[in-house]
Amino acid sequence: MRIEHLSTGDEVLNGSCTDTNTVFFANQLFESGLEASALHTVGDNRDELKAMLRDITARADVLVMSGGLGATSDDLTSEVVAGAAGVPLDYHEDIWLWIQELFRSRGFTAPEINRKQAILPRGCEVLPNRAGTAPAFRLTVGRCEVFALPGVPREYQLFMQERVLPFIRERSGRGQVVCRTLRVYGFGESHLASILGDLENEYADRVTVGYRASHPEVWVKLVSRGGDRAAVDDMAAKAREKLGLAVFGEDSQTLGAVVSELLKQQGETIAVAESCTGGMAAAELTERPGSSACFVGGFVVYSNALKTALLGVPEAVLAAHGAVSQETAEIMAREGRSRTGAGICLAITGIAGPDGGTPEKPVGTVHFALATATEIFHRKEVFSLGGGRPQVRRTSVYQALNMARLYLQGHDPCWRHALGARRQKP
Amino acid sequence: MRIEHLSTGDEVLNGSCTDTNTVFFANQLFESGLEASALHTVGDNRDELKAMLRDITARADVLVMSGGLGATSDDLTSEVVAGAAGVPLDYHEDIWLWIQELFRSRGFTAPEINRKQAILPRGCEVLPNRAGTAPAFRLTVGRCEVFALPGVPREYQLFMQERVLPFIRERSGRGQVVCRTLRVYGFGESHLASILGDLENEYADRVTVGYRASHPEVWVKLVSRGGDRAAVDDMAAKAREKLGLAVFGEDSQTLGAVVSELLKQQGETIAVAESCTGGMAAAELTERPGSSACFVGGFVVYSNALKTALLGVPEAVLAAHGAVSQETAEIMAREGRSRTGAGICLAITGIAGPDGGTPEKPVGTVHFALATATEIFHRKEVFSLGGGRPQVRRTSVYQALNMARLYLQGHDPCWRHALGARRQKP
Repeated sequence: MRIEHLSTGDEVLNGSCTDTNTVFFANQLFESGLEASALHTVGDNRDELKAMLRDITARADVLVMSGGLGATSDDLTSEVVAGAAGVPLDYHEDIWLWIQELFRSRGFTAPEINRKQAILPRGCEVLPNRAGTAPAFRLTVGRCEVFALPGVPREYQLFMQERVLPFIRERSGRGQVVCRTLRVYGFGESHLASILGDLENEYADRVTVGYRASHPEVWVKLVSRGGDRAAVDDMAAKAREKLGLAVFGEDSQTLGAVVSELLKQQGETIAVAESCTGGMAAAELTERPGSSACFVGGFVVYSNALKTALLGVPEAVLAAHGAVSQETAEIMAREGRSRTGAGICLAITGIAGPDGGTPEKPVGTVHFALATATEIFHRKEVFSLGGGRPQVRRTSVYQALNMARLYLQGHDPCWRHALGARRQKP
Repeated sequence: MRIEHLSTGDEVLNGSCTDTNTVFFANQLFESGLEASALHTVGDNRDELKAMLRDITARADVLVMSGGLGATSDDLTSEVVAGAAGVPLDYHEDIWLWIQELFRSRGFTAPEINRKQAILPRGCEVLPNRAGTAPAFRLTVGRCEVFALPGVPREYQLFMQERVLPFIRERSGRGQVVCRTLRVYGFGESHLASILGDLENEYADRVTVGYRASHPEVWVKLVSRGGDRAAVDDMAAKAREKLGLAVFGEDSQTLGAVVSELLKQQGETIAVAESCTGGMAAAELTERPGSSACFVGGFVVYSNALKTALLGVPEAVLAAHGAVSQETAEIMAREGRSRTGAGICLAITGIAGPDGGTPEKPVGTVHFALATATEIFHRKEVFSLGGGRPQVRRTSVYQALNMARLYLQGHDPCWRHALGARRQKP
């Protein structure tokens, strides 16, 4: 079964925005044990759309389209799909009434321009929209079932989950794909591949291995297209043994989620004291619902004056050692912990760049500290990253959260590339 | 001139990661006054790759490929491109020596597995990699110039800028595309389209208008494919007049950048006091280099206890009005300002959900306050957003920053959909 996706719109073709619908489509399909054969993007261009529809409908069993169902002049999907199927367009008075009603319920009058959304290809199955004004539709074009969905992500996602995926699941006779992704922090992609090379050979006929650098993480994806759950689980267990503490989670488990989960399990709370990451660690720890069970809050002490005013870093320490130093990081962590009452506190202070580096403290120098009830752990990194300021900040958040993760798992929070080190209790 | 892009890799096909290279490609091309005809993605699958290469090289003048040049078994690009061109693969000892040297310079020994990266299609132009181990290459396949670039974003981006774009610019005889994007906060896409409908008609033969909801922003893109700068500028001026304060910036100007720029121009400083956004506003204000000139820091007071401990919100206020209230927001802003010494302070407290809503304060209820030397402004929003928790948090950051933007521009910070309102000085 060949399934393809066609995302339309100048804004995705021109890169004005990230095409989240295509990513959602691919993800959902894969998690349903299926996969897309190809994904395509074209602009709001009649000729390109026609050509692409002709080629795809000739080879695919299912085509899902995103976008082009809006009310404006660059919305061409209904017209072009009708053309590909060789059917005329019909105006549906009932859909226009429904659109007007929807606007009314939100306290607006439907603009006349939205009447266009009631014009659809003859013979299509109309799919009512629960979240917006654009109705979606399904139409058979040659051998291919074409689903035309709105481009607004939340509307697109509802249609995918409620209409498209059930349809595809029923049509497909494909076996279940089994997939596990090990999420690794602290190793490069090539290094990982050499560590796991033997294992890759051992399982070569049953499990496909893919590596992916998703900075600063690397993902190891173990896939059995034949649905061999036992082989994937076996191999995952052996891979985890070889990689040790570098594996922080699997599949959709982000590092922030892993840390939050450990905190909740242990009835522990956390605070943060951030300089160069400017609130990013706090934002990460509050991303998930229920964060308040383990995250109390924190300080963003971007200026030196605030490091002193809010966290009591003595001016003498700043003068002698600088804001980016072990001394400052440790005081930030200790005071962040005591002033918030949290069980543990992470501190991050560094030079994110592009300016501010010196020969002794180049851009990328970051000091981390983790304060607990009885100890303060410190670690210094000099990130030499091609991604510049955003990457230094992002990697710093990972490094800090990873220290918390290791600590909460009972390991040395300063563990680095040496497998299985246990923390010495003081 | 037909230019297409082919992104390869199971991880992009399966949606494991956002395909930033395709977005970068499309953006760069468009900003160079050119545009892609189509963008494609296929997995690490020999047959699909072969089929896609055959189709694209038959119709395109230039094909840029991303990924598949790594050292692991799922890297197929060299092999498949050689196949499409009907040439054999050659091993380049000099490239392998270069790769070994690169690893040595970083303090590592090159794994034997990386030798694979020295095997390239015969007759290709080797493009040395300044940022990683995978050499890129260019090969003529039929009528099409194929560029094979590494998938690691920073390496890909260097190759695009230094090798591919200069090549394409020289080859193309296309006129310059003129494009301006107005960035709007506070109007929906359809509403914008009806406000600008007449203008769209007036300029129909010279300027193409595209709308894009990039929640919570909407973008109005004015494009002249014929290079008519005057028409685009004229229309942009008239559109800005109709949209008034809703336009906060243009092109690559983010709201955070606009606020930072205004602060710097006025020698003003800002702090933040965040609850439900948990550090996101601070992170946004520290994203750009040089943020320390206008951003001093802030508080993340996620728990009620910290609202009291760090910002002096009286327990009686929390008990009487709740953490999500005008009273709490105003105290957070006032105390955030005085305790940091910043010129102005934004406070955000709300219910991001999915839990914690009540009939009086449903999920999406957020109170904002802006404290200045002489005034405190308050605004309440009840965001009814399909995107859930992440969207409430993201929109809240926009709303807060927009209040600062309006204030710094001398307008009423609480302006809402009424054009041109001037703030009354107290």
